[in-house]
Amino acid sequence: MSEQSRGADATAFVPGHVTGFFSPYPDDDPERAGSRGAGVTLSDGVRVTVQPADDAPRITLDGEDCPMAAVETVLSALDVADRARVIAEGDLPLGTGFGVSGAMALGTALAANRAFGCERSTNALVTLAHRAEVVAGTGLGDVVAQARGGVPIRLDPGAPAHGRLDAVPERARVEYLTLGDLSTAAVLAGDTDRLVTAGEAALSRLVDRPTLSTLLDESRRFADETGLVTDRLAEVLSAVDDAGGRASMAMLGETVFALGSGLSDAGYDATVCRTYDAGAHLADD
Amino acid sequence: MSEQSRGADATAFVPGHVTGFFSPYPDDDPERAGSRGAGVTLSDGVRVTVQPADDAPRITLDGEDCPMAAVETVLSALDVADRARVIAEGDLPLGTGFGVSGAMALGTALAANRAFGCERSTNALVTLAHRAEVVAGTGLGDVVAQARGGVPIRLDPGAPAHGRLDAVPERARVEYLTLGDLSTAAVLAGDTDRLVTAGEAALSRLVDRPTLSTLLDESRRFADETGLVTDRLAEVLSAVDDAGGRASMAMLGETVFALGSGLSDAGYDATVCRTYDAGAHLADD
Repeated sequence: MSEQSRGADATAFVPGHVTGFFSPYPDDDPERAGSRGAGVTLSDGVRVTVQPADDAPRITLDGEDCPMAAVETVLSALDVADRARVIAEGDLPLGTGFGVSGAMALGTALAANRAFGCERSTNALVTLAHRAEVVAGTGLGDVVAQARGGVPIRLDPGAPAHGRLDAVPERARVEYLTLGDLSTAAVLAGDTDRLVTAGEAALSRLVDRPTLSTLLDESRRFADETGLVTDRLAEVLSAVDDAGGRASMAMLGETVFALGSGLSDAGYDATVCRTYDAGAHLADD
Repeated sequence: MSEQSRGADATAFVPGHVTGFFSPYPDDDPERAGSRGAGVTLSDGVRVTVQPADDAPRITLDGEDCPMAAVETVLSALDVADRARVIAEGDLPLGTGFGVSGAMALGTALAANRAFGCERSTNALVTLAHRAEVVAGTGLGDVVAQARGGVPIRLDPGAPAHGRLDAVPERARVEYLTLGDLSTAAVLAGDTDRLVTAGEAALSRLVDRPTLSTLLDESRRFADETGLVTDRLAEVLSAVDDAGGRASMAMLGETVFALGSGLSDAGYDATVCRTYDAGAHLADD
């Protein structure tokens, strides 16, 4: 791999991830910290290209400068922070509950490993990205879910050595509509007891009956019980209900996601994608 | 899901899987039994459709009757053996090291779960298929590798509750050439000490340097050290070496697999596919 140690462009694709419900599990060890919960990974995601560069690290998202602590931490952990440029392009807005920050951390890990011949395993790269995201405070469970793909259930929190995943063996068309952003850090700094209680109950019911239908029902119940639904979200959710659809709120963003044609049936101009079968992967070979 | 409990066709796709090296770990509990080792999953695979039917279970592969104990066990475990027809279609020959029997067991589990609304989780279905394959004696590690996709490293044997996986974060074009079949059962009934010794050494080296290049080198060394290379295989492997390519033997079949254009560069009329990014998944929604 001497050719790669000199550095060559590499690109990774990471699916978006919408969490439907969760309970946070902080820990002094960021590899053990994380969340339990469930969500859907999406065919809309982030393409992250890592390029060798001589100048200071520069991170762009859709052409705009976008400094991100988690991405910088990943580059440092791979010992390439002084010679990598990160160019991310995506379909999804940042800060609205699609796991874009997790996608950038994980995509950077996969692409930089390839570009610079770092010779780490997939679990090692997922662990780096999970640690970086937890330490940056931008997410707790997106990275491990995005590494798996499909409809991941996070049974136990943490990086691959500690966490445990299962999944709902279904796929679906997904629609989404973003109204605004919410701060993950602010919600996690608030009263998390309610999140833990509601999140644990939802997880237990999903494990008993692991279907997409249960996932949506439990996500909606979680959103209602935790009081995270804004007035604008409530209006959209109620319209989808009235049209006979199934929708809930992305944790954490002012975003509605629906199965099938739930949002368009209710008259909204929603973005359409699908659940994504694969976890994050290189995209350039 | 009452609509589904009456039964509706469902189809799953399961990637092929070629093991490069392995060590068998038998156990009285088929969920703990399995193998450690590594291989590549392939974009060539098996599409398994499960259809509700009133007659006795009937299993076909590419239009031919193909009774398979593992498939029947999976149907029984889901309590649908008396009302399911299994129609498998694939690109890969049976008994030649591509994990077709594992693919049929896993594809049946995923598709039957969907067709009959059994409401099992992905891990539960993978566990059913792994158990069935181990009890049938047709494979030890294909099912868990096929459930993951990519380039899986089987760190610890067994179904999801016991086994542990990592992966090589690379993708590649793969070529293969099948000369004949080998009996997995016959090899496992022979002297397995040599397999364990060579397999453990290969795994340890791959974990130290988890790249596709290491995987191919270690697979080739394993094939040579375990004496499983037939004369016909040796001739092809040597021709690929002479052409500057990288190839090894599928465990277990009289099949050569090569990275990139290794076989065609050596003048063989090989089949071309790619490593597969996703694990087994439904294919009909």
